[in-house]
Amino acid sequence: MDERDMEIEGMIIGNDGEEERLERYTSGSAEDKDSLRQPLLLKNARINNTSQLAIVGANVCPIESLDYEIIENDLFKQDWRSRTKDEIVQYIFLKWTLALLIGLGTGVVGFLNNLAVENLAGFKLLLTNSLMLKQKYYQAFAAYAGCNMVLAFAAAALCAYVAPAAAGSGIPEVKAYLNGVDAPSILAPSTLFVKIFGSIFGVAAGFVVGKEGPMVHTGSCIAFLLGQGGSRKYRLTWKWLRYYKNDRDRRDLITCGAAAGVAAAFRAPVGGVLFALEEAASWWRSALLWRTFFTTAVVAVVLRGLIEFCRSGNCGLFGQGGLIMFDVNSAKPVYSTPDLLAVILLGVIGGILGSLYNYFVDKVLRTYSIINEKGPSLKIVLVLAISLLTSCCSYGLPWFSQCIPCPDYLGDDQCPTGRSGNYKNFQCPPKYYNDLASLFLTTNDDAIRNLFSSASDKEFQLSTLLTFFVAIYCLGIITYGIAVPSGLFIPVILAGASYGRLVGTFLGSFTSLDAGLFGLLGAASFLGGTMRMTVSLCVILLELTNDLLVLPLVMLVLLISKTVADCFNKGVYDQIVKMKGLPYLEAHAEPYMRNLVASDVVSGPLVTFSGVEKVGTILHILKVTKHNGFPVIDETPFSAAPQLCGLVLRSHLLVLLKGKKFTKQRVRVASGIMRRFIANDFLKPGLGKGIQLEDLDIKAEEMEMYVDLHPISNTSPYTVVETMSLAKAAVLFRELGLRHMLVVPKTLERPPIVGILTRHDFMAEHILGLYPQLDPHKKQP
Amino acid sequence: MDERDMEIEGMIIGNDGEEERLERYTSGSAEDKDSLRQPLLLKNARINNTSQLAIVGANVCPIESLDYEIIENDLFKQDWRSRTKDEIVQYIFLKWTLALLIGLGTGVVGFLNNLAVENLAGFKLLLTNSLMLKQKYYQAFAAYAGCNMVLAFAAAALCAYVAPAAAGSGIPEVKAYLNGVDAPSILAPSTLFVKIFGSIFGVAAGFVVGKEGPMVHTGSCIAFLLGQGGSRKYRLTWKWLRYYKNDRDRRDLITCGAAAGVAAAFRAPVGGVLFALEEAASWWRSALLWRTFFTTAVVAVVLRGLIEFCRSGNCGLFGQGGLIMFDVNSAKPVYSTPDLLAVILLGVIGGILGSLYNYFVDKVLRTYSIINEKGPSLKIVLVLAISLLTSCCSYGLPWFSQCIPCPDYLGDDQCPTGRSGNYKNFQCPPKYYNDLASLFLTTNDDAIRNLFSSASDKEFQLSTLLTFFVAIYCLGIITYGIAVPSGLFIPVILAGASYGRLVGTFLGSFTSLDAGLFGLLGAASFLGGTMRMTVSLCVILLELTNDLLVLPLVMLVLLISKTVADCFNKGVYDQIVKMKGLPYLEAHAEPYMRNLVASDVVSGPLVTFSGVEKVGTILHILKVTKHNGFPVIDETPFSAAPQLCGLVLRSHLLVLLKGKKFTKQRVRVASGIMRRFIANDFLKPGLGKGIQLEDLDIKAEEMEMYVDLHPISNTSPYTVVETMSLAKAAVLFRELGLRHMLVVPKTLERPPIVGILTRHDFMAEHILGLYPQLDPHKKQP
Repeated sequence: MDERDMEIEGMIIGNDGEEERLERYTSGSAEDKDSLRQPLLLKNARINNTSQLAIVGANVCPIESLDYEIIENDLFKQDWRSRTKDEIVQYIFLKWTLALLIGLGTGVVGFLNNLAVENLAGFKLLLTNSLMLKQKYYQAFAAYAGCNMVLAFAAAALCAYVAPAAAGSGIPEVKAYLNGVDAPSILAPSTLFVKIFGSIFGVAAGFVVGKEGPMVHTGSCIAFLLGQGGSRKYRLTWKWLRYYKNDRDRRDLITCGAAAGVAAAFRAPVGGVLFALEEAASWWRSALLWRTFFTTAVVAVVLRGLIEFCRSGNCGLFGQGGLIMFDVNSAKPVYSTPDLLAVILLGVIGGILGSLYNYFVDKVLRTYSIINEKGPSLKIVLVLAISLLTSCCSYGLPWFSQCIPCPDYLGDDQCPTGRSGNYKNFQCPPKYYNDLASLFLTTNDDAIRNLFSSASDKEFQLSTLLTFFVAIYCLGIITYGIAVPSGLFIPVILAGASYGRLVGTFLGSFTSLDAGLFGLLGAASFLGGTMRMTVSLCVILLELTNDLLVLPLVMLVLLISKTVADCFNKGVYDQIVKMKGLPYLEAHAEPYMRNLVASDVVSGPLVTFSGVEKVGTILHILKVTKHNGFPVIDETPFSAAPQLCGLVLRSHLLVLLKGKKFTKQRVRVASGIMRRFIANDFLKPGLGKGIQLEDLDIKAEEMEMYVDLHPISNTSPYTVVETMSLAKAAVLFRELGLRHMLVVPKTLERPPIVGILTRHDFMAEHILGLYPQLDPHKKQP
Repeated sequence: MDERDMEIEGMIIGNDGEEERLERYTSGSAEDKDSLRQPLLLKNARINNTSQLAIVGANVCPIESLDYEIIENDLFKQDWRSRTKDEIVQYIFLKWTLALLIGLGTGVVGFLNNLAVENLAGFKLLLTNSLMLKQKYYQAFAAYAGCNMVLAFAAAALCAYVAPAAAGSGIPEVKAYLNGVDAPSILAPSTLFVKIFGSIFGVAAGFVVGKEGPMVHTGSCIAFLLGQGGSRKYRLTWKWLRYYKNDRDRRDLITCGAAAGVAAAFRAPVGGVLFALEEAASWWRSALLWRTFFTTAVVAVVLRGLIEFCRSGNCGLFGQGGLIMFDVNSAKPVYSTPDLLAVILLGVIGGILGSLYNYFVDKVLRTYSIINEKGPSLKIVLVLAISLLTSCCSYGLPWFSQCIPCPDYLGDDQCPTGRSGNYKNFQCPPKYYNDLASLFLTTNDDAIRNLFSSASDKEFQLSTLLTFFVAIYCLGIITYGIAVPSGLFIPVILAGASYGRLVGTFLGSFTSLDAGLFGLLGAASFLGGTMRMTVSLCVILLELTNDLLVLPLVMLVLLISKTVADCFNKGVYDQIVKMKGLPYLEAHAEPYMRNLVASDVVSGPLVTFSGVEKVGTILHILKVTKHNGFPVIDETPFSAAPQLCGLVLRSHLLVLLKGKKFTKQRVRVASGIMRRFIANDFLKPGLGKGIQLEDLDIKAEEMEMYVDLHPISNTSPYTVVETMSLAKAAVLFRELGLRHMLVVPKTLERPPIVGILTRHDFMAEHILGLYPQLDPHKKQP
């Protein structure tokens, strides 16, 4: 991440190494910002912090937790009571308008992405082809590799210098965000910009990468941008959109955005909704289903309209295909027991290969992160190297393939003549085609279309499919992790489809299913083996191929490959989330948590405030700790015995201090005095818009004055008794999407609060660090 | 519900009217069993208690809450620690085996249902047709109406005498069960039996009812039966299936069952999963998605296999169609702005008509419940009356329709000749057909197929469609609520399709979309207007019709009709749940709850036990209260000051008392003494298998002895502080699926527990009864 960029965005970057780490362990009110950095990433700091993506450099990594709790304090309650019916209607209207805008935006971006890629790649391929026809083979390679390198350089430069967070798929980060982890600038406008253009250049450069992950990320960025009412930095602000100033509403918007992204990438509206539900979202509710569905419907309508518009030929090289990307149109599949056995075998091997893919991706990512850490220029060199390698493979390997005569059922005019089409001449004479070139020297989408086609089993030779499979499998693995926006879907589908078609062609006469269908099933098996989704993949594949009759087969393959792959490792996105050190909360509690109680993982003394606190004390504590939530304790004279009043957030304290409504005496203020503040002041601001500690200008005499924290304290924080089973506390924390959970004492003689549990305290690394004997993977002595 | 049936099932039926109600208001530890009966149903007891379904008679209505909390007591913890790896593997294996069995069972039942209906209805129609051909019109009517009445009588007799709970759709009850409300015998084996056969007879009798609701209910019953390891009553028990003895695991199984039901009814595996997710389930998690998906995949495979088997002609009159029920196969739809306007209008009117349908269904249900309450014989009379009316409509109305010449594109041999087919002669000469008879005198499935067909716009006249629409709309409304298993999907689809085709035919030349597509969109608009589902309906319709290209249009229509209908009333299932008085917990807290705190809705003194309690006291309290959970308080000498030890459940107390491990002195027992019990004893038994109060045989001297409650106390109950906002307490209660939530005091001088909140305390009726000034629908004075 660029230092300059961050400063402008207005973030505080804690530049403190060792002392922070110590503080974490001596302080109970765990602050996510720093606590999450060290303990999690301690053992293996280099690798975890320096993945190819956003989190470059361990000391500039302010991972924030999000807070989905409804805050019930005096001010917000008052605000809620005074809300008129008009305002509520306006809010609902805005919600749907935003969903519409997200749909429109993502749809248009998705379409433009497609348009740009097809024109850029089409131009590149036409140029290469025309040189090939003139038999200028070296020039053709130079042109091909040159175009690729230029495009790759553009993508890499954008990623390396403008927004490093835009590299990679983006789905793991969106998934983490929806789980409550806010990685830095992952949804910033600059990331959006780079994601869009980087993805176009990267895909057009012929890399084995897809556009779906980036589209999901793009959709989420658009949603975030709209949700915070534009960007102040780029002077794009809409006043009337500034309603969504809390993490809950933003989470909902970003869920819609992620769904819209899949819908735009695959033209699969229902699949998009299911993807958001199954893979992206950690919290879900019925109302959200409907809103997401609306968003993806808008995307479908936009795409359909734009595709119709392009049909008249005014979009350059774009124009083939409608809303269904790979219309396989197979005959009614009739299958018998041997076919089923073949399909089961396909699923098993697909599952194994898929989990192996995950394994290698993980290893490669860890290796690349060492290179990427060394600076932007090395990142670009890596990208260029991979680009050259990809070009060599695509251009070099087809030379080893034989020329195949053009099939009879194609008329003379349909045989390859240099224009774009299913079959490529390459070095072959007219009326012949090179089958490997037909897969390599084309866009990824067209290659998939070829592999799914069921025109003839003999279309591609066994050796061709084997070569292509091995090449794509390896290129896919080494490409993910370089500094370009790179989706994982397309490489996996490509590898899977060639693997499936290979099996289908190999079995040939033993099975009555055609090779194109095997290609589809192979793609399903690979997707199941890497992504580990089920329903959403099933629906996405259906929407991609428009073939409902193969549904039982696709379901079967997905189930088998997922089951097999789950025996070896986790899904690829979960793996990346873990590798990046994002503190992802699983939906279920781990078994070892049953042996612990809540107070077992609470550590150190606690920082609390009095109900009416001295300004100087607050300021000092805000300075020396990075905690984000502070319990407020009422003491004499405000209550007979010390008792818990509530929880106050750092951001709210800053607003309060900025307002300077201090009193000389230690007294509770009347509610009237708070009129100066309105609830809106305390809503969570957008990226880089919050008040910072440095913004405060407190005079020396004000330091000795008092401020009443009651009106801004969340008086209904969720609490657990200290003897509560940790497993049950974890369920509570996760299900309600909390950021802070207060632990209260069981007996009466103790102070009113024992400690605070945060996301960090539920992480396996933290708990097993404290209680290594519970580690299930460790041998008991 | 039959009194005899209940006694055999072993349920305690509290036959206590007034005193129970008083007790409820004087006692804090609210017991769902009785508390839910009175306050909710008080105002309008007759109507709410006597809906056409299970809950007949206000004083025999033991609605139970389900408890999804993980109980952490000493015994269970010990059990968990001692679990071997083998047992865990066995558990996982069982989980998947059960999912497989549910899929198999539901698939087979679904297929047999189809087979039986098509053969019964086919026989009836053939008989009528052959008499028509001989021009014996009166005899034909007699045969037709007679067959209908006999079948209707069979269905009604089963419902009225064997299992009243089997009447109606069953989806509202399943929905309530999955929300945590256990209505009596709703999933009992007798209900399953009647549901299967009643549905076959009811649909074959020509009623305007569907088989989907009943299939969902059937699937859930199968799941429940398998989950509790068979039925002791019917001597069907599998020892090795008795693992699923808690509400959580049963809930998951029943979710799978509901999904399997939809998958079997519509042959829509993905639609089934989404239905379970969107409409049925209240709690959802990712692991469940996968299991549900597996179950519906099994259903799809089973159905496919059986349909293939029947293709060879050995299933009587069954045989048409494959896995896609209504293969519409329309041409590529190309639509322009006027078409879109027509579709939007269709959606708006469809939404209005749909919500009107809900309104009338509600009114009719309330009327019928008065009749149904009067006894089984009156129920049967009502069914027969409706059957006769339906027969008159189906047979009488086609006489007013004109004869239409057989269309040219049908060959001479395809024109109607009396055999079953798309077109019916009725009274017309050969080479002519009666279009209204082609819709009425056929099975519901065939009628839908006709309405969706896009052969020709002129196939059905405007007047025919109008007559059919009005007749089906009215018949559908008056049929739901009679004592036969009756789904709502098919009537709504039929009415919607005729309405859509009517609009399509009317617009005729103004639109380029064909009438069959309008039929489909009309059905979508009606479904959206009544059921208010979105994604699941969309996918179900896609899977029914195999036409992905109309997806954007279907989405549009569904969104519009749902939005319009939501302005008027709730979805039909929610409405029925409410009408039946089932205490359904909504996913969100109501706004007025923000003005209250947890202790505001806790009422009366509390019944608690000591950590070591006298047997006589326990027995007495179990007798005089119906509470289901009791807080356990540790007092001196076991702790310095009174403190909360945990929560003990009635069922666990009964097991403990039955075990008779009492001590003479008031001492805590060593853990060794509990070895007599194993954790399995305390798991929740199946229907009617639990220990009852009457089963205990405690001697007089034992009454004076003590029993230690510590080992069976749930030591980690979820608690809230008394000052917690009620809205936030409600969110906690709902999200975690609790049955009891303990309210603890804020200050220290008070006893360690203030009260217990149960499902009842979060019901609008209860809260607004206590605080009528908060009612948003009430005018403030």
